[in-house]
Amino acid sequence: MKKISDTARISRSAKIGENVVVGHNVTIGDGCVIEEGVTISDNCIVYPNCEIGSNSFIGPFATIGEPTFPYYEKRDEFVFPTTRIGKKALVRSYSLIYSDVIIGDDFQCGHRVSIRERAQIGNNVRIGTVSDIQGYCSIGDYTRIHSNVHIGQKSSVAAFVWIFPYVVLTNDPTPPSDELYGVTVKSFSVIATGSILLPGITVNLDGFVGAHSLVKKDVPAETVVSGVPASEICNVRKLKNRKTGETCYPWRFYFDRGMPWEGLGYEVWEKAQASDKQGL
Amino acid sequence: MKKISDTARISRSAKIGENVVVGHNVTIGDGCVIEEGVTISDNCIVYPNCEIGSNSFIGPFATIGEPTFPYYEKRDEFVFPTTRIGKKALVRSYSLIYSDVIIGDDFQCGHRVSIRERAQIGNNVRIGTVSDIQGYCSIGDYTRIHSNVHIGQKSSVAAFVWIFPYVVLTNDPTPPSDELYGVTVKSFSVIATGSILLPGITVNLDGFVGAHSLVKKDVPAETVVSGVPASEICNVRKLKNRKTGETCYPWRFYFDRGMPWEGLGYEVWEKAQASDKQGL
Amino acid sequence: MKKISDTARISRSAKIGENVVVGHNVTIGDGCVIEEGVTISDNCIVYPNCEIGSNSFIGPFATIGEPTFPYYEKRDEFVFPTTRIGKKALVRSYSLIYSDVIIGDDFQCGHRVSIRERAQIGNNVRIGTVSDIQGYCSIGDYTRIHSNVHIGQKSSVAAFVWIFPYVVLTNDPTPPSDELYGVTVKSFSVIATGSILLPGITVNLDGFVGAHSLVKKDVPAETVVSGVPASEICNVRKLKNRKTGETCYPWRFYFDRGMPWEGLGYEVWEKAQASDKQGL
Repeated sequence: MKKISDTARISRSAKIGENVVVGHNVTIGDGCVIEEGVTISDNCIVYPNCEIGSNSFIGPFATIGEPTFPYYEKRDEFVFPTTRIGKKALVRSYSLIYSDVIIGDDFQCGHRVSIRERAQIGNNVRIGTVSDIQGYCSIGDYTRIHSNVHIGQKSSVAAFVWIFPYVVLTNDPTPPSDELYGVTVKSFSVIATGSILLPGITVNLDGFVGAHSLVKKDVPAETVVSGVPASEICNVRKLKNRKTGETCYPWRFYFDRGMPWEGLGYEVWEKAQASDKQGL
Repeated sequence: MKKISDTARISRSAKIGENVVVGHNVTIGDGCVIEEGVTISDNCIVYPNCEIGSNSFIGPFATIGEPTFPYYEKRDEFVFPTTRIGKKALVRSYSLIYSDVIIGDDFQCGHRVSIRERAQIGNNVRIGTVSDIQGYCSIGDYTRIHSNVHIGQKSSVAAFVWIFPYVVLTNDPTPPSDELYGVTVKSFSVIATGSILLPGITVNLDGFVGAHSLVKKDVPAETVVSGVPASEICNVRKLKNRKTGETCYPWRFYFDRGMPWEGLGYEVWEKAQASDKQGL
Repeated sequence: MKKISDTARISRSAKIGENVVVGHNVTIGDGCVIEEGVTISDNCIVYPNCEIGSNSFIGPFATIGEPTFPYYEKRDEFVFPTTRIGKKALVRSYSLIYSDVIIGDDFQCGHRVSIRERAQIGNNVRIGTVSDIQGYCSIGDYTRIHSNVHIGQKSSVAAFVWIFPYVVLTNDPTPPSDELYGVTVKSFSVIATGSILLPGITVNLDGFVGAHSLVKKDVPAETVVSGVPASEICNVRKLKNRKTGETCYPWRFYFDRGMPWEGLGYEVWEKAQASDKQGL
């Protein structure tokens, strides 16, 4: 059973799975594959060659598969690259995902998110309202990007990273130029609100960048940096919970909501992972 | 006399007042109450159980009553809470107001504003383009929030506050965590462009936060703070008008555009308020 | 040959040129002039009295000619001022251009850009996603404004300026007040990511503002400033390319992509310009 609005415009070459819902004034282009149980809400535009994984929800006014610049030069000749959104995605309203983006399963994003071409996004990633992923970058599994974050091209953000509002990852050391050096953020790092990371910087494992910092040098593992420009403050273990006074970093040992070790604890999960790998 | 477009989709259980205008491709859900003289512009989505006060104007592509997360878990069982926008609102295009938001009369907002659930907004509030009110917060009467401001959950912003572009009110002292401490901003305060207020901070009456500051400590009443981190600079009375050299803070004594004391002066109005209260 | 969707609503008084494409659910108001070869994509709203130059492309969900505040006071009496977008514009999706805006030829903007009334924008300008041009301002030819930039009212941005993400040009020295002093940015300047320029500041020819700065004083020509508050660091010629160690500023001598001197070099082009002027 499908529920397709009579004001939707669906290409004959699109494959529409079982139990798909397509709202009013929706366009679905040639060669799209809309898997079972997907909802495409009112007023969405899905350009050609998009694959949307089963049970995903695409909110109103969203755009999937936006064409890249060559489209505007020769529209008739433009071939839409494949865009893939995994299973159980929740793409909220007004969001915009370019063509040639690959997103894993269990993705969720806020409203008005922009994700440009050649972004590779892992499983279980969250991206907040108005954030702008400029493409040609990678974002690892379970990474949480809050509202209004700007991820410049060539950025490499690992798994299990937290990036808070108004953070910018830059890439051009001598702007304007054609030499881009992306920022690298390693796993379990935290970048607090309003910080700017200069081109080519690496934030190492369990690193912590305090709010409103300007990061000009690499952040060592397990280290808190802060300030304009940022300097090293202390080991992350010295940051304490405000109420209990207890250690709370590296956060992976103290926080589990939404993480694969939820209810287990990080150590237990990590050991299980390690033995799984040995088993393979 | 109503002007309802023939491409609008209006639930039979919605109550549509006199002189209401409903544009093309508008959806109005079950149980909505659209009071007299309201305009719902083209392409708006009004989810169930929204009340829109008389003579309000909802601009194109706006969404009112956006469902919260439980909707995506069990859509059939989701009951939309009441959303209320007061009289004479002006909600500009592309803005998004969640369900379970209460907004007073004479509200105005810019474009692409997002207001999440459990935001309580007073009368005569202004919120600028792209600002993001994260919900579970309160904003008092006559408060002005400029463009691209981020109000974190648990924030408490009093009446007659001015917040300028790219200000962020944070809430998590040890991110990521589940312990949120909101920022409190008391009446007549000013927070200038690009400042970040750390979790749990209070800005007291007539306080002033200079541009691009990082506020880590409470701001005393009538005090200017500035810097990264912010330190106390002077009493607000020492800030002078650039042209005349005259005192201009606390601003309530020197500025009245759009305020209830417009044309009267703050002192006169304040005395009248006080005697009104005595009268009661 | 025109391709006009049967769900478009086009005023009879609008002039639609040859080879114009008008998408689904588009509104085009009275007195509009849509020149030959223009595409107006699905779901766009073009208010009355807009002129869109030949071969321009207006992306989906865009709004052109948005009415200013007096419209909401007396809608029946509001006369839409002329809005003009030059030839070969590329206005990407969800962008919003107010009435009474004048934009030159070869304009390109990202998504969700807002441009308010009385903005005067030259030829060959680029404005990035989510940027907010507050109107009553001017932006010169070939200027590049990146994502999420805020240009306050009364700003004057010359030709060949580069402004990077999250920069704010402010205008009110004693907020809230009615005395606005715009920022002036002169040609060939660069303002790096996340900097805030205070009201009335001038950035002079070839000036460079480092990332995350708070600029409280004028920036002399050819000078690098940086910090909170910003202080003078060095002459721009001392900034070197990270890889080659070579001088790279003033950038006009070292970078030409998209500039009128592309392939020629700035000096050659500049001499040609000068002799052209003598010829006149």
